[in-house]
Amino acid sequence: MTADRLPGPAVKITRALLSVSDKTGLIDLARALAAHGVELLSTGGTAKALRDAGLAVKDVSEATGFPEMMDGRVKTLHPVVHGGLLGRAGTDDAVMAQHGIAPIDLLVLNLYPFEKVSADPDSSLDEIVENIDIGGPAMLRSAAKNFARVAVATDPAQYAGIIEELAANDGALSAKTRFALSVAAFNRVAQYDARISDVLSAIADPSDESARNRSAFSAQANGSFVKVMDLRYGENPHQQAAFYRDLHPAPGSLATFAQLQGKELSYNNIADSDAAWECVRQFDAPACVIVKHANPCGVAVGVAPGDAYELAYATDPTSAFGGIIAFNVKLDAATARAILDRQFVEVLIAPDYDQAALDYAKKKANVRVLRIPMAPSSRGFIDAKRVGSGLLMQTADDRVVARDDLKVVTKLAPTEAQFSDLLFAWKVAKFVKSNAIVYAKDQRTIGVGAGQMSRVYSARIAGIKAQDAGLRVEGSVMASDAFFPFRDGIDAAAAAGIKAVIQPGGSMRDNEVIAAADEHGLAMVFTGVRHFRH
Amino acid sequence: MTADRLPGPAVKITRALLSVSDKTGLIDLARALAAHGVELLSTGGTAKALRDAGLAVKDVSEATGFPEMMDGRVKTLHPVVHGGLLGRAGTDDAVMAQHGIAPIDLLVLNLYPFEKVSADPDSSLDEIVENIDIGGPAMLRSAAKNFARVAVATDPAQYAGIIEELAANDGALSAKTRFALSVAAFNRVAQYDARISDVLSAIADPSDESARNRSAFSAQANGSFVKVMDLRYGENPHQQAAFYRDLHPAPGSLATFAQLQGKELSYNNIADSDAAWECVRQFDAPACVIVKHANPCGVAVGVAPGDAYELAYATDPTSAFGGIIAFNVKLDAATARAILDRQFVEVLIAPDYDQAALDYAKKKANVRVLRIPMAPSSRGFIDAKRVGSGLLMQTADDRVVARDDLKVVTKLAPTEAQFSDLLFAWKVAKFVKSNAIVYAKDQRTIGVGAGQMSRVYSARIAGIKAQDAGLRVEGSVMASDAFFPFRDGIDAAAAAGIKAVIQPGGSMRDNEVIAAADEHGLAMVFTGVRHFRH
Repeated sequence: MTADRLPGPAVKITRALLSVSDKTGLIDLARALAAHGVELLSTGGTAKALRDAGLAVKDVSEATGFPEMMDGRVKTLHPVVHGGLLGRAGTDDAVMAQHGIAPIDLLVLNLYPFEKVSADPDSSLDEIVENIDIGGPAMLRSAAKNFARVAVATDPAQYAGIIEELAANDGALSAKTRFALSVAAFNRVAQYDARISDVLSAIADPSDESARNRSAFSAQANGSFVKVMDLRYGENPHQQAAFYRDLHPAPGSLATFAQLQGKELSYNNIADSDAAWECVRQFDAPACVIVKHANPCGVAVGVAPGDAYELAYATDPTSAFGGIIAFNVKLDAATARAILDRQFVEVLIAPDYDQAALDYAKKKANVRVLRIPMAPSSRGFIDAKRVGSGLLMQTADDRVVARDDLKVVTKLAPTEAQFSDLLFAWKVAKFVKSNAIVYAKDQRTIGVGAGQMSRVYSARIAGIKAQDAGLRVEGSVMASDAFFPFRDGIDAAAAAGIKAVIQPGGSMRDNEVIAAADEHGLAMVFTGVRHFRH
Repeated sequence: MTADRLPGPAVKITRALLSVSDKTGLIDLARALAAHGVELLSTGGTAKALRDAGLAVKDVSEATGFPEMMDGRVKTLHPVVHGGLLGRAGTDDAVMAQHGIAPIDLLVLNLYPFEKVSADPDSSLDEIVENIDIGGPAMLRSAAKNFARVAVATDPAQYAGIIEELAANDGALSAKTRFALSVAAFNRVAQYDARISDVLSAIADPSDESARNRSAFSAQANGSFVKVMDLRYGENPHQQAAFYRDLHPAPGSLATFAQLQGKELSYNNIADSDAAWECVRQFDAPACVIVKHANPCGVAVGVAPGDAYELAYATDPTSAFGGIIAFNVKLDAATARAILDRQFVEVLIAPDYDQAALDYAKKKANVRVLRIPMAPSSRGFIDAKRVGSGLLMQTADDRVVARDDLKVVTKLAPTEAQFSDLLFAWKVAKFVKSNAIVYAKDQRTIGVGAGQMSRVYSARIAGIKAQDAGLRVEGSVMASDAFFPFRDGIDAAAAAGIKAVIQPGGSMRDNEVIAAADEHGLAMVFTGVRHFRH
């Protein structure tokens, strides 16, 4: 692509059209424009607000000679407005003069609140459709297309920069600013039209009068994501990559992180950080999660972050090397020191840090330190997985299993301590790649068996890892992310010293599996919930 | 949401505005409209095409009393056009009559080819911007908003249905049809605006005259996906899900599948099918890949699909149970029979099937049988991974490592047979979750070690699995998806009987690792390419 027209000259603003539903900053901007001798065109409520502030305003209907009609459906869709926005300096001057079209150099406009109205489940289809702005996007698109001459503002956050540049530049806006504003306007229009398509294409049958006649999954799904940063490379060095966030990130989500120090985040850092953070923020008491290659390799709850880290680390010191370490509480200096003095760490994550912890981290300047403000997990998040020219979309696995959800299926019930460990192991298993087997005791992992194509191997790996780390399985509990298809898994667990089991249940052979647990004197609970994670 | 206006009455079409760049089917549609007494309004090239076909047409400029101007930038942006589209029956009749605005009941319109022009790397920014249609989307949006009275067609594929309904319905279109056409128009506008935002927000600096001044990753990334089907549930039963495809799926990609028989596909079926299909279509000779829980658990190349399947199955019969089985060649009846008589299978995939194979499959009516037309893998596919309120985007891992790319680093070079097995094992390792270790011999997998947080455990698992399957590791080759950080991995491999190794290289201790291989008399090659897959 060649940019054969740019950089163009700065354009002195002589005439501005203002039409906003959000009046934030409007008067300041209009005053600044008036001070530069800019003629103000406006409509309806915006014109009234400007006049109330003592500013001289010309109504668009006066300029077009055509009244506003159809309750505002048609007011600016007129050649005098669109010719004023689209006319090219030097090329269209004669035809504009001939038809009495005065150039408009600046458009300031927000759109009808379609997103807000359509998000309200009480809105009727009529109200939703009435909030599809027609004139607004048309003007935004005309102005944005003609960035060679015209500037366009869609957001009060842009006003201060415009006022500043007008002041510094004798009432003119540069080509660079106009292009940036144009891109922002096209971005805004794309977001707006994406939501209209989402909302309308989710209606299966418009003649169905039921109150919730919308599918969770629209016939056309449109996503808009804002680039946070380019990444040095992707999952592998020969892949290019970038990290994007949602238009409105949920509080407490990974995308709200601030990086306080360290090297650039990599693709794998971000993916692993998400797993570590989502896993650790499930716990109420101070917890530590260490993630490597997308799997938790050590998790523990403690009275303070320090002992939680020690216990998590001890599960698998080999894997913890170069891991991502996340906490759900403020990180103190002693724990920061314990980690950084002992091991190579890619990323540290916590909702906050003691200043002394941050000061100590500076000694290892490469370590990436992220702060993510804690907030309760938000529900209704949409997860997605890319496959060949396709996309699998699903609601996130945000089901929380609590003590009351557990059904004791064996003669023996778990002790209180075992219940607590079973729920702990279950929370870990949810974040281990399937098939997942987690051995745990006293609120810490003893062995993690991840990512196997059959459940029996995951159990063997959990046992091997516990043995290699010098941890005793005897007296531990076991969590399995899906049901045991046969009794052999229980037999093997009992032989290893497991005393209580948590699993979804639901196998055709549940009776056989329960009988095996009873035979071995194990306690077993069913969750009724599966947590595959691939 | 309540649909308080719908179902509305059918609307008799009296006046249509036609403005199309794609003239496919135009004359047939216009003739059908004229036969129902519909008045035709048009502009420029469309008007000429209609007149050439002997149809009576009124120019839009005649209706508006305003000439087409600015090389077509402004021709339909006029209250007579938009009032004609937006006017509400019953509500706006008086004001329309007062201003001489005749209702337009049908809009037939395609947009300027922005997508095509902007996809051409030789296009200048001027040409790209000139192809941003302003009047077209404005009319589409006006007509689509007013579906209570107006119908809108954006695609010649819609004409036949419209002609049929007009004929069956005395020249009227139903509320249901108008709503469906409205949604299609809003979907089309969302796609169009998404691409404009993508293209313009990828330009880092419009004043940079260099020919390739576009980032692979736009400042705002907009995706539009079309729903293929709702799924019964997601990765787990408590998650809702749907499967979408790209607007233009790449030939040979999973999304182009046809399901020939069997139960509904599940979320996990689709995800696993993608892994199986992408893995198997790497091979030129007949190959079979069996996937379970997102990992290949058996892969083999044979002289025919039948022996490829037998060898793939033998790697891990336990995991193959309930697996996804994919072939890269037409599936014959004998192989279909061998599979279906022996094992439970979730999905069968092949580029084609002998009729007798399909007939035999009918005996197991639940088995999902997919046909995916074979095509060379397309490059430049964009992969994506969802994280908390964010999206990691990357170019796909489509790097192919060939014999010429391999660098022999040991004193001993692999034999020809070993080279062939090393490349085979490498293709499998690319699709095994990291850390990935694959043992292979004679173009078949001997053991697959998947998804571990440290490489040494993946190697142990590969060995355990080979042993459990009764396969001899002695004389096999080994592939590792990333480098060995220490010599211990090579020592263990040699002890297990591995004779040749393929790995990326690039460790700080490569010299130590190479020395270990030389000590053990192993051959080792470096690819220079890593294949993490998490």
